[in-house]
Amino acid sequence: MENLDPQGSGPVLGPSIAEILAEHVSGTGSPLRTARRVADAIGACGDDGTWLSTVGRDELLDAAAELESRPGARTLPLYGVPFGVKDSIDVAGVPTTLSCPDFAYVPAVTAPAVQRLLDAGALYVGKTNLDQFATGLNGTRTPHTVPRSVYGGEMISGGSSSGSALAVALGQVPFAVATDTAGSGRVPAALNGVVGYKPSRGLISTVGLVPACKSLDCITMMAGHIDDVDRVMAVMAGRDDGDPWSRSAGPTYPGTPIRIGLPPVSELEFFGDDAMRAAHLAFRDRLEHNAFAVKVEIVEVSLAPFLAAGELLYAGPWVAERLVVFGDFLAEHPDSIHPVVRDILRSGQKYSAVDAFAALQELQELRAEVGRTWRDLDVLVVPTIGRTFTVEEVLDQPIETNTMLGHYTHFGNLLDLLGIAVPQGHTADGRPHSVMLLGNARSDDTVVHLAAALLDEPRTIAPPTTDHTERLVSWPNP
Amino acid sequence: MENLDPQGSGPVLGPSIAEILAEHVSGTGSPLRTARRVADAIGACGDDGTWLSTVGRDELLDAAAELESRPGARTLPLYGVPFGVKDSIDVAGVPTTLSCPDFAYVPAVTAPAVQRLLDAGALYVGKTNLDQFATGLNGTRTPHTVPRSVYGGEMISGGSSSGSALAVALGQVPFAVATDTAGSGRVPAALNGVVGYKPSRGLISTVGLVPACKSLDCITMMAGHIDDVDRVMAVMAGRDDGDPWSRSAGPTYPGTPIRIGLPPVSELEFFGDDAMRAAHLAFRDRLEHNAFAVKVEIVEVSLAPFLAAGELLYAGPWVAERLVVFGDFLAEHPDSIHPVVRDILRSGQKYSAVDAFAALQELQELRAEVGRTWRDLDVLVVPTIGRTFTVEEVLDQPIETNTMLGHYTHFGNLLDLLGIAVPQGHTADGRPHSVMLLGNARSDDTVVHLAAALLDEPRTIAPPTTDHTERLVSWPNP
Repeated sequence: MENLDPQGSGPVLGPSIAEILAEHVSGTGSPLRTARRVADAIGACGDDGTWLSTVGRDELLDAAAELESRPGARTLPLYGVPFGVKDSIDVAGVPTTLSCPDFAYVPAVTAPAVQRLLDAGALYVGKTNLDQFATGLNGTRTPHTVPRSVYGGEMISGGSSSGSALAVALGQVPFAVATDTAGSGRVPAALNGVVGYKPSRGLISTVGLVPACKSLDCITMMAGHIDDVDRVMAVMAGRDDGDPWSRSAGPTYPGTPIRIGLPPVSELEFFGDDAMRAAHLAFRDRLEHNAFAVKVEIVEVSLAPFLAAGELLYAGPWVAERLVVFGDFLAEHPDSIHPVVRDILRSGQKYSAVDAFAALQELQELRAEVGRTWRDLDVLVVPTIGRTFTVEEVLDQPIETNTMLGHYTHFGNLLDLLGIAVPQGHTADGRPHSVMLLGNARSDDTVVHLAAALLDEPRTIAPPTTDHTERLVSWPNP
Repeated sequence: MENLDPQGSGPVLGPSIAEILAEHVSGTGSPLRTARRVADAIGACGDDGTWLSTVGRDELLDAAAELESRPGARTLPLYGVPFGVKDSIDVAGVPTTLSCPDFAYVPAVTAPAVQRLLDAGALYVGKTNLDQFATGLNGTRTPHTVPRSVYGGEMISGGSSSGSALAVALGQVPFAVATDTAGSGRVPAALNGVVGYKPSRGLISTVGLVPACKSLDCITMMAGHIDDVDRVMAVMAGRDDGDPWSRSAGPTYPGTPIRIGLPPVSELEFFGDDAMRAAHLAFRDRLEHNAFAVKVEIVEVSLAPFLAAGELLYAGPWVAERLVVFGDFLAEHPDSIHPVVRDILRSGQKYSAVDAFAALQELQELRAEVGRTWRDLDVLVVPTIGRTFTVEEVLDQPIETNTMLGHYTHFGNLLDLLGIAVPQGHTADGRPHSVMLLGNARSDDTVVHLAAALLDEPRTIAPPTTDHTERLVSWPNP
């Protein structure tokens, strides 16, 4: 492990949503002042690879002023709260580029999930950088400036939601909308010391998101605090008949002791990063000694079926699902694509339908096995990532390093889990340590409750309402 | 439509399960006498294409005698009840052939679902004929004797569970185990005037069933009465951790009026069979005039999304799923395969993984649309088949006729429905008319309740128990 010479010391969060709202409502601040602060902060950073496009300063101030003058806006749940949007999600009138200039198009309609934020008074700031076509977990697969982690030392930002994590970690916005197919909403959170929440699939409508693997994609968020997550979810989550995977939220955390599953230490992989291993074991020690303000029961659980599902993803035919959307573009504009991404997309062409069905059958076996596991535990706790990398290390071995980054995240959507990456201290050499809390589909409130306890935060916001009469439409059950 | 000269006049059912049990328990009959009767009946029919193998007469009588002498056997729920098993399901020591002699193997273990029947005292009689590799809905795709419908006139038996339907329709056994992927457990029931019940997938373990499309396959049953269905389900249904699609049964019929969905008459397809159309409309008329002993509310519902899903099946990549199991055999022994089946299997090779994922995405859209439909109705009622065919008509146009046979059945498993084919009278020219009752997954008891009402039967048996704490594992949600 390289000895990093840190040029960054980690995230410097800006005000939380609650703090911003308090300022705006009390009058000690205002949307206009917040907008100026955001524009200044972004301008000061220059082109560091965080943003692909931003609302021009004047336009942003105009939007803030319009908000201030709108009757009743002061009571909106995200009144004047600035936010970024990963550039795979549509905002009307703004190009959606997927970090591929030749792919860009200008949508006429804002994605419903983002529209909910705007309707709630939030202030759209710009589109954040991503690994091209959301195909990567490391942040280097962009033709634009390659972003670095706020921890410095040429550490990667992670991806694919690189810019979304950075916009929060740099203190520019309190939250940013991101996505997660194989870990894209969690790995960059880990590498920048922020919260990366991937809700159960279907809670947030994916209409207006350019699909990576449509059967796996989730819209997610990066934030500094669980309270931010709760406030954003309360606005963003909701059924949408336009999204065939749409589902209602699950039940509220019942208040009973949370059964936490921890894999045997021997099953944990850190790829030689002994400092990360030590940080994670120290965390587990605190957990097992009731250091956090929540009643837990610790249960041992094997990671084997989870990791087997992860292997199905990166070594199996799901890469072909990306071609459903990008196949034509690959055929017509191969040179417009980042070479690593191009090779990955091409690799999807070799898989047959027989391969796909065989893999889906294997997945079903694993889902059934993992399904039985959830009878005995509520939350599985693992590292978000086993180790960090520098930009050079990733450019040198683009596929192998990316696979390592996804070790703990590849299986999440395949197994229909929710996940939240929560910053938990540092390695001895000052690199970020993050734990990932995973739960079975629709157990979000319990998992988020644990996350809040780990960050020593109270829960103040009621979770999205549950529709108990819901008939869950499961996918795809062909 | 040909004018049939019926050589058969329809099913001649034997005693029901309840009647057999009553005889055995009262002493007016016995398993030994029942075994003799079954052996005689089968012997009298000769090789009519119903059975691929039967337990030898002496061996059958020995088994019956052993049962009679077993302490406590008299109280078993299927004491001495004879049954057949479709020859794609394993019985230990008996070849499983899939109606393909070169494919045959001898399993060491009986399929758990069948073992439950044996443990319940039922008497295994033999393996029934099927369209080879369960690839067909018409009954002609067998290298053995091609069976005919009990309605004569060279009418096809239907398939792929041809022999299972006939064994019941000929009065040889009160029930037979069958399967259904695209209608194989319902179409032959329609063509032979018996009940063909395809439960919600996962209620009966598919361990020991050679898969056709593993993501769609269900084990099913043919029977003469709903009471037979209830008694068999009470034994066969049950969770099996060895089957990754295993699910618990749903709730009991709540007793409220059943909301019946009927498509607009204009949407019903009879492929020119005006007599069948008349028979079906006469049935609907009776239904709409409360001719049956159950409270119903009639609701109009469009078949369009259901039929769209059906088209995805027969015109899409799911045929490739059959190659997961049969691909190697096709490559190594192409000449061992029925030519029509061979061509169909080969057609699966042209589909890519991209095709599979694109189709699965389309299916999810349809599942979501159909899912919303189930908010407004409990049971969808349609013809099981739009028209009948002769053997010659099918041999002349093997693909087109088969597609017509599956018009109403292709979509059932893709959309995760249950279905039951219920005989309801005849056409004016003496051919069978069958209605199919379809319900959303795990609404079996309500659908079966309606089926009982259509047959003017009381319900006497408690349905399989519901596990309300069940976490449903849905497939595959990759």
